[in-house]
Amino acid sequence: MMASQFGSMLTRLGNLSTSDHASVVSINLFVALLCGCIVIGHLLEENRWVNESITALVIGVCTGVVILLTSGGRSSHLLVFSEDLFFIYLLPPIIFNAGFQVKKKQFFRNFITIMLFGAVGTLISCGIITSGVMQFFSKLDIGSFDIGDYLAIGAIFSATDSVCTLQVLNQDETPLLYSLVFGEGVVNDAASVVLFNAIQSFDLTHTNLRIALQFIGNFFYLFFTSTMLGVVAGLLSAYIIKTLYFGRHSTDREVALMMLMAYLSYILAELFYLSGILTVFFCGIVMSHYTWHNVTESSRVTTKHAFATLSFVAEIFIFLYVGMDALDIEKWRFVSKTPGTSVAVSSILIGLVLVGRAAFVFPLSFLSNLAKKNPTEKITFRQQVIIWWAGLMRGAVSVALAYNQFARSGHTQLRSNAIMITSTITVVLFSTVVFGLMTQPLIRFLLPHSKNTTSMVYSDSSTPKSFAVPLLESAQNSDADMGGHGFPRPSSLRMLLTTPSRSVHHYWRKFDDAIMRPMFGGRGFVPFVPGSPTERSAPQ
Amino acid sequence: MMASQFGSMLTRLGNLSTSDHASVVSINLFVALLCGCIVIGHLLEENRWVNESITALVIGVCTGVVILLTSGGRSSHLLVFSEDLFFIYLLPPIIFNAGFQVKKKQFFRNFITIMLFGAVGTLISCGIITSGVMQFFSKLDIGSFDIGDYLAIGAIFSATDSVCTLQVLNQDETPLLYSLVFGEGVVNDAASVVLFNAIQSFDLTHTNLRIALQFIGNFFYLFFTSTMLGVVAGLLSAYIIKTLYFGRHSTDREVALMMLMAYLSYILAELFYLSGILTVFFCGIVMSHYTWHNVTESSRVTTKHAFATLSFVAEIFIFLYVGMDALDIEKWRFVSKTPGTSVAVSSILIGLVLVGRAAFVFPLSFLSNLAKKNPTEKITFRQQVIIWWAGLMRGAVSVALAYNQFARSGHTQLRSNAIMITSTITVVLFSTVVFGLMTQPLIRFLLPHSKNTTSMVYSDSSTPKSFAVPLLESAQNSDADMGGHGFPRPSSLRMLLTTPSRSVHHYWRKFDDAIMRPMFGGRGFVPFVPGSPTERSAPQ
Repeated sequence: MMASQFGSMLTRLGNLSTSDHASVVSINLFVALLCGCIVIGHLLEENRWVNESITALVIGVCTGVVILLTSGGRSSHLLVFSEDLFFIYLLPPIIFNAGFQVKKKQFFRNFITIMLFGAVGTLISCGIITSGVMQFFSKLDIGSFDIGDYLAIGAIFSATDSVCTLQVLNQDETPLLYSLVFGEGVVNDAASVVLFNAIQSFDLTHTNLRIALQFIGNFFYLFFTSTMLGVVAGLLSAYIIKTLYFGRHSTDREVALMMLMAYLSYILAELFYLSGILTVFFCGIVMSHYTWHNVTESSRVTTKHAFATLSFVAEIFIFLYVGMDALDIEKWRFVSKTPGTSVAVSSILIGLVLVGRAAFVFPLSFLSNLAKKNPTEKITFRQQVIIWWAGLMRGAVSVALAYNQFARSGHTQLRSNAIMITSTITVVLFSTVVFGLMTQPLIRFLLPHSKNTTSMVYSDSSTPKSFAVPLLESAQNSDADMGGHGFPRPSSLRMLLTTPSRSVHHYWRKFDDAIMRPMFGGRGFVPFVPGSPTERSAPQ
Repeated sequence: MMASQFGSMLTRLGNLSTSDHASVVSINLFVALLCGCIVIGHLLEENRWVNESITALVIGVCTGVVILLTSGGRSSHLLVFSEDLFFIYLLPPIIFNAGFQVKKKQFFRNFITIMLFGAVGTLISCGIITSGVMQFFSKLDIGSFDIGDYLAIGAIFSATDSVCTLQVLNQDETPLLYSLVFGEGVVNDAASVVLFNAIQSFDLTHTNLRIALQFIGNFFYLFFTSTMLGVVAGLLSAYIIKTLYFGRHSTDREVALMMLMAYLSYILAELFYLSGILTVFFCGIVMSHYTWHNVTESSRVTTKHAFATLSFVAEIFIFLYVGMDALDIEKWRFVSKTPGTSVAVSSILIGLVLVGRAAFVFPLSFLSNLAKKNPTEKITFRQQVIIWWAGLMRGAVSVALAYNQFARSGHTQLRSNAIMITSTITVVLFSTVVFGLMTQPLIRFLLPHSKNTTSMVYSDSSTPKSFAVPLLESAQNSDADMGGHGFPRPSSLRMLLTTPSRSVHHYWRKFDDAIMRPMFGGRGFVPFVPGSPTERSAPQ
C-alpha cells in the first residue's frame, strides 16, 4: 500500500514538477516514516538488541530501495544530504539536551580524563588512522590523495558519534562509562574542528614544533572560548528570567526564551567559527543548574520533556536520513566496477578505527588510573574494554565531514572521491549496526551486576532523571543560600573524603553559594512546590 | 552596539560570501531579535495597547532600516519572503495550537454562525472588494489588470488574519467574539483556497449558474474532506497511543507522536490540495478531546505548553519577518515616483476592507439572530461592531497571497505589480497597528463589564486554560464512561434547557460515551492523578 501510494505520489510529482510541491512530498514521507520509526521502535522495545536508531537506519535503507525501484533506478533519496540541515537544525537539540540532562557531578569528577580522551585521544586516533591509510592505500589502485586528504580521512574516522553513544549507553546503569564516552565525544568535536581548520589552513608538507605549538594553542583557545560562550549564554538566560519574571511567571515566554537562547549560543559559536557543540553542551549544563530552577513548575516539566523529545526526533531523523542516503546510485557506480577494492578499503578503515581507538583508550586509562589514589575511582580493565567498544561507532558527523571533504567539487564524479564516500557510508552502517548491536550484550557480559536494572528503567530511558543531582548536593541549604557558609553537611561528607578533587568542589560550592546563586538563581530560588520532580528525589 | 556588531557581520559576510555562512548570519539575527521581542514584549506587558506582535512588527521595521543603512541602500531583508517557510513551517503550529486550546463547547455551539461568516461572508467581502477595485482602479493610472487579478485582489483582502485575532481577542474575556472571529478566520482559509483555485482554473470571462454550482460544490467537498482528514489523523493518534502505550507510557514518544501526527495531517492536506489550516485545526480539536487524555501527566503538561510556545514563537517570527520585509527597496522604487497613486490605492483598499466586512457582519448577524429563540444567545449590536472591527486586520496570509499573485514572474519589475505589493504591505501594517491597537480600547468601551478581568488573567493569556471544558461537561461520569448511559447530570441540565441545539449535543454525547471513548480513550481513560490541571478545575 505504501509503495503504490508512493508510486502515485511520484507520478503526481512528475506531472506537476513544481519545486514546492516536491518538498511537500518529501516532508510527508519523512514525517510518516518518523511516526513509523517511533511506533516500531516502541513495539520492539522488549527486544534488547534493537533500538530506535537501528530501526530508523533499516527503515531508511528499505525506503531507499523502494524509491530506487519506483523511480526506475534514478535516485534513492528525496533530499540530498545537506550539511546545513544536519549542523544547523538537527545536531544542536541533541547536544543541548545531552548537556541539559547529563549527570553533572559524574561529568565534572571525570573532567581531566574526559579531556585526555577527547583531545589527546582524538589526536592519537587521527595519527594512527592517517599513517595506516597512507601505508595501505598506496598498495591499492584507488586514485591520488594528497597529505591533506589523508589527514582528513584520519579526522573523519576519529569522530566518535555522540548521538550513537547516547543510544547504546545508559546514564543510569553505567554512569562512569556514559560520562567518559559521551564527554569524550563532545570534546572530540572541538578537536576535530581544530584539526579540520589546521588541515585546510596550515602548510602541512613540512610540520615543525612551531606549527605543533600553534596547533595546541589553537585548541585551548577554541576550547576555552566555546565553553565560555556557552556558560555566558546560560547565565544570561538565568539572569534575564530571574530578574524580569520574578513574581509574574509566564510559562510560554520562559520556555521560548530558554529554547531560543540555547539555540542562539550554538549559532553564535558557529558564526565565530568556534565549536558549537561544546558551546551548546555547556549552555545546557548551566541552564539545568541555574535557569531551570528559576522558572515555574510547568516550565520545568515542559522544558525537560520538550528538549528530550526534540532530541529524540532529531536522532531518529538523522539515522533515517543516513539510511536513505546510503543507497544513492551515483556513488555506487564506480564501486560496482571494482567491488574488491571497495571492500578492501572499508575493511582497512574498520580495522584502523579499532586499532586507533585501542591505541589511546588503554594507555590513557592507565595514565588516568595512576593519578587516582582511591581504587574505586580507577577504571577497571573490563570498563576500558567497554569504553573502547562503545566509542567505535561512526555516525552522521563522519558522513557530514566526508561529504565536506570529498563531495565538494562536483557530485562525486572522481573515482577516488566516490570510493571514499561509499566507504564512509559502509563504515558508518557497519559500525552502527554491528558495534551498536553488540554493546548491550558486551556490557551485560563484562559487568553482569548492572544487568537486572535494564528492563526496569527502560520506559523512561530517553529522559534521564538527572535533575536531582546538582553539581554538588546542596539541596539542604536551599533556604540559606545567601549566607555563603561553606561547612559541609553530613550527606556530602562522605563525598568530600573520597573525592580526590574535593578542594576544587569545595571552593566551587562556596563560590556558587556566595556569588553565583544570589545573582543567577538556581536550586531553591522558587518556593517549594509539592510533588515537583526536584523535590521528589532530593536526598532525605 | 547592535548596529556596529551588525556592520562587522555584514563586512565579514562580504569577505566570505559563502552561502552557508550567510544563512548562519541571518539565523543569528533572527534568533537574537526573537529573544529581544520576547523580553521587550514582557517589559511592555503593563501597557495594554502594545502586544508582542506589534513589538515584533516595529522591531522588524527598525531592523530593516538598520540593514538598509548598513548595506548602503541595497536591501532591507536577510531572507526573501518565502511562501514555503510561512505555509509549511510557521502557520501549522499556530493553527494547531488554536484548535488544541479552543473552547470546544463555545465553538460548536456557534458552528452555523461561524460557517455563515467564514464561507458566505468571505464571498460577500471578496465580491465587494473586487467590484470596488474594478470601479476605482480604472480611474487611477496604475497599469493593466485582468479580471483574474481583480478577483485575486478581492481574495487577498478578504483573508482575515487568524494570527492577529488570537492576539487581540482574549478567549477567557470574550469567548463568543473570540470563537466567532477566530472560527471565521479558519473557515475563511478554506474559502480562499477554493477562491484561488477557481480564479486560476475556471474560465472567468463568462460566469454562469453551472460554474457557480460547481464552485459551491467544490467548497463543500473541500471543507468536508479537510475536516475529515484532521479528525481521522486525531483519532488515529488517540488510538495508537491508547492501544500501544497502555501500562507502559513513555513521555518522549507520546509527545513526539502527537507533534508528528499533527504535522502529518497538515502536510497531507497540502499534498492533496486541501485546506491544511482546516485539517490541522480539527486535528487539534480531536487531539485535545481524545489523545491528550490518553497520555501521562507529564506529557499533558508538556504538550500543552510546548504547543503554545511553538505557536507563540511562530507568531512573533511572522510579524518580525513581515516588518523586515516591508522595507525592501526594490518594491518601493516605482512607488517613490508616484507617491500619490500609491497612497490612493492603499486608502481605497482600506476603505473597501471596512465596507466589505460591514456588508456581511451586520446582515449575517441579523440572520443568525433570527434563528435563535433565546435572547441571551443573540449577538447584540455592540458585539457586532466588535466582530466587524476585530476581523479587519490583514496579516501574513494576505502578504503570502499577494506575493503568489503579483511577484511570481520576475521580482516585481512590473509597475502595477510593484504597486499592489507595496499597497498590500501598507494595508497590513496599517490594519495591524491601527486596528490592532484600537481593538482592546474598543472592547473596553463597548463591553465595560469585561474590563476588570483584563489584568488578572494577563500573565497566562497565551495559554488559555481551556482543557477543563470538554465538548460536553462529562467529567463526573469519567469512571462509568463505558456504560453508554445518556441521562443528563445536574450540572449539564441547565445547558440542555438553554441550548437550542441540545438534541445534537445530547446525541453526540451518547455516541461519544458509547462508541468513541471506549475506542479512542479521552477524559477518564488514565487513572486519576492528584493535582493534575484537569482535575483542579473540574466542576465540583
